[in-house]
Amino acid sequence: MPKPRILVSNDDGYFSEGLQALVEAVSPLGEVWVVAPDREQSAASHAISLHRPLRIKEVRERWFAVDGTPTDCAYLAIVHLLKDARPTLMVSGINHGSNLAEDVTYSGTVAAAMEGALLGIPAIAFSLVARGTFDFAPAARFARSIVTTALERPLPPRMLLNVNIPGGVEPEGYSVTRLGRHSYGYSVVEKEDPRGRKYYWIGGSEYQHEDIPGSDCNAVHLGRRVSVTPLHLDLTDHGRLEDLGSWSLPGYARHEPDGA
Amino acid sequence: MPKPRILVSNDDGYFSEGLQALVEAVSPLGEVWVVAPDREQSAASHAISLHRPLRIKEVRERWFAVDGTPTDCAYLAIVHLLKDARPTLMVSGINHGSNLAEDVTYSGTVAAAMEGALLGIPAIAFSLVARGTFDFAPAARFARSIVTTALERPLPPRMLLNVNIPGGVEPEGYSVTRLGRHSYGYSVVEKEDPRGRKYYWIGGSEYQHEDIPGSDCNAVHLGRRVSVTPLHLDLTDHGRLEDLGSWSLPGYARHEPDGA
Amino acid sequence: MPKPRILVSNDDGYFSEGLQALVEAVSPLGEVWVVAPDREQSAASHAISLHRPLRIKEVRERWFAVDGTPTDCAYLAIVHLLKDARPTLMVSGINHGSNLAEDVTYSGTVAAAMEGALLGIPAIAFSLVARGTFDFAPAARFARSIVTTALERPLPPRMLLNVNIPGGVEPEGYSVTRLGRHSYGYSVVEKEDPRGRKYYWIGGSEYQHEDIPGSDCNAVHLGRRVSVTPLHLDLTDHGRLEDLGSWSLPGYARHEPDGA
Amino acid sequence: MPKPRILVSNDDGYFSEGLQALVEAVSPLGEVWVVAPDREQSAASHAISLHRPLRIKEVRERWFAVDGTPTDCAYLAIVHLLKDARPTLMVSGINHGSNLAEDVTYSGTVAAAMEGALLGIPAIAFSLVARGTFDFAPAARFARSIVTTALERPLPPRMLLNVNIPGGVEPEGYSVTRLGRHSYGYSVVEKEDPRGRKYYWIGGSEYQHEDIPGSDCNAVHLGRRVSVTPLHLDLTDHGRLEDLGSWSLPGYARHEPDGA
Repeated sequence: MPKPRILVSNDDGYFSEGLQALVEAVSPLGEVWVVAPDREQSAASHAISLHRPLRIKEVRERWFAVDGTPTDCAYLAIVHLLKDARPTLMVSGINHGSNLAEDVTYSGTVAAAMEGALLGIPAIAFSLVARGTFDFAPAARFARSIVTTALERPLPPRMLLNVNIPGGVEPEGYSVTRLGRHSYGYSVVEKEDPRGRKYYWIGGSEYQHEDIPGSDCNAVHLGRRVSVTPLHLDLTDHGRLEDLGSWSLPGYARHEPDGA
Repeated sequence: MPKPRILVSNDDGYFSEGLQALVEAVSPLGEVWVVAPDREQSAASHAISLHRPLRIKEVRERWFAVDGTPTDCAYLAIVHLLKDARPTLMVSGINHGSNLAEDVTYSGTVAAAMEGALLGIPAIAFSLVARGTFDFAPAARFARSIVTTALERPLPPRMLLNVNIPGGVEPEGYSVTRLGRHSYGYSVVEKEDPRGRKYYWIGGSEYQHEDIPGSDCNAVHLGRRVSVTPLHLDLTDHGRLEDLGSWSLPGYARHEPDGA
Repeated sequence: MPKPRILVSNDDGYFSEGLQALVEAVSPLGEVWVVAPDREQSAASHAISLHRPLRIKEVRERWFAVDGTPTDCAYLAIVHLLKDARPTLMVSGINHGSNLAEDVTYSGTVAAAMEGALLGIPAIAFSLVARGTFDFAPAARFARSIVTTALERPLPPRMLLNVNIPGGVEPEGYSVTRLGRHSYGYSVVEKEDPRGRKYYWIGGSEYQHEDIPGSDCNAVHLGRRVSVTPLHLDLTDHGRLEDLGSWSLPGYARHEPDGA
Repeated sequence: MPKPRILVSNDDGYFSEGLQALVEAVSPLGEVWVVAPDREQSAASHAISLHRPLRIKEVRERWFAVDGTPTDCAYLAIVHLLKDARPTLMVSGINHGSNLAEDVTYSGTVAAAMEGALLGIPAIAFSLVARGTFDFAPAARFARSIVTTALERPLPPRMLLNVNIPGGVEPEGYSVTRLGRHSYGYSVVEKEDPRGRKYYWIGGSEYQHEDIPGSDCNAVHLGRRVSVTPLHLDLTDHGRLEDLGSWSLPGYARHEPDGA
């Protein structure tokens, strides 16, 4: 049986330590292909480059650097570079920093995995919840464990898992979680450059999370455990459909969908 | 009673025709503030600029151009520029082109509204489903109608609506919909520059959507009606939580969330 | 006799006040074409975009915005947009700030004119020596005067003039000058972003110029007069050729150029 | 006697082969510091980042990557990183491709050296005249030879040399040259992206140089020798000062510089 193809990407860029750790973690499990941004693309979200072309540089065999976003990398890998034999699984990360709660909407790490899932490749995003000092070894061990398990079963094509590993510990367990809520404090820092012109940093360094039972934040911050959160790509808020049906918009008739 | 503050942003940039149309549509309904990117940011998704500072240019009273993403604009507007009196409602658009189905994960128009909702401001994203020629007048009329209705009721702070208006017609009605599925064809176009180096376009111009009853694609493309889709910000795939509970990961114990 | 074509560009971008002032100044003298960057490109120097393609947006008749550098604009204008009837003269500016002394090597305003001259179009760069408040009217009057004179005579194709107009006065005269020497103070300002990562501003706000008789700095700063400095494109330091001929390089024979 | 400090930069970026070759060439001759752009910055010219801050990443001891232009790198190195003991010499390159004739005005490789010279550090720019396949060994040997010689003599602080080494040969000699003239053919290539929007490449691949005795082009292309061209930073066209003195500008008096 041929080894499964595993696609690896990230948002910290081709040369990041977390990418290296993830590649080493999954290399025994399959034929690894790396397609990653040529520079840091943190908080790039699901941005895709439709209005400018991209360059692909083959740095060495099966390692490619792209001058684009994490989403660009996933798209070029799956639709172009690996089109003859699509990967069995995509992994993204290991991100230098957490991707919990609302973070997943901003995260380039999650976006790369999301693009994989949209293109029909089951995908897992990995993030190390640390600041400053990063020891990727425990996170890499967990990545190898869950990828081993994932490869043993038939996965739904749009499967998307978001994994956060607490830093500074050897986690002894994990929980299947849902997204929590947190904030970094909402602030904008105003500064003046040497020529007297103002500029602004999107700020916030006062982290706090809501205490929501079953949330990824709780698992990681309170339980010091790995959180594994399944994500989906359907952002429809089904719970609000009914309320919206009660609105009346002056000048417009409301129709049942697909109805008369 | 003071006029409600309405924040307007978009992803096509400060000088786009669709932004102008939206501002004119909602100006009679409140005190309008515009905070928009200084250049086109299509498909910027929910990218946020955490690693570089931003410039804010006050072009005229209550009109600001920011050298950042749509998300940056929403954040700076709500957390900084309008912090003394937060807006009652945020609107984004009118986008030059559709934001249906999976588009919402890539869209800067939707991302600006999403950021508003994350920061507690109810938000509506508007997109005109057209290519080439854009007549924003019918879309602007619909925007005025739904914003009028929205301002008359107490809205949940994280409300996020995604509105798509068919182009080239005067739509006579609308439907409350869920996100559909579509594709632009998956392709990568390889080219060579004048100096012999290859480059790649993320391509796809063969649009097709799945026929899903109740979907935004069906409403717009089959029914020629406006689609109004409520979105939420919780990407958790609750349906997959149970299945994941059955996985066993070698070397790691699974714990109930928040449990022992 | 047909009106001469005058090409206008700059580095402050399509929407800058200085560009507008220059266009109004020269409009009575010829058929004006504007090809300018779509956003500020200060200190872009003579950078040219060879590794990425460019977009050209025709904003209105004979007004084009390009998503590139000042050099890109001059190149696209002369080689492509105006290839059927090349311009008689190119003007660049009016820059928001001085371009004296060593500034010319960094300046995008001068670079646009330099590209014009390299492509055989006589060119004049205009800069207003001011900070903070800019009144372009006196500078625009001088521009009209010198362009009027320039158009009356046959100009050498590679002519390149660098004009600096003192701000805050109505200059009563001008001098033909050479480049002086100045500095803004050499400093690097270290800061820390809200997430604790350091960043650096290339700084310097302590301006001083050497007192060099006949220099542009003296004319503008001491005499409050317009400086007109002819530039050329041959950076060869002829004065050092002889000294270099006396070097001996181990392992390599020195040959007379083109000789044996 | 302490080893002289040698600063190395380039425009092809931190990871380029030519930089590596240059570092190896000069390492036996001094204490080498590398401060280079974190990605390719070809044709960046003398652009300097005054309107955005920069990041400096210490990759390993005495090796720094900067997210800016070649000029930024030289400035940060000399004014900030090495301010305690300024370098004795700066070298830039080895560029992947020629920097002959008018190229020097566009070149980032030359601009880095130019910034060094402006800041008082004698500087030499190296370029390998090749396309496609690059063997840097002969160029590196020449670099070691000329740097050895340069370090043995007192150099004028603003010395700036531009060295081009022919590719595909082991050059047996060199000439002291002046800048020639050449062109790549002037063309703009129009294309259409997958979504039907036009874009443009600044083109030209038909290289030809004028046959100018004593020029760098002749030495390299006809003689297959290394060209060593001294450059200066004074772009004043002294030959045109007199002619300009004969212009009369309506409404303005011409004054002798510094005179009445």
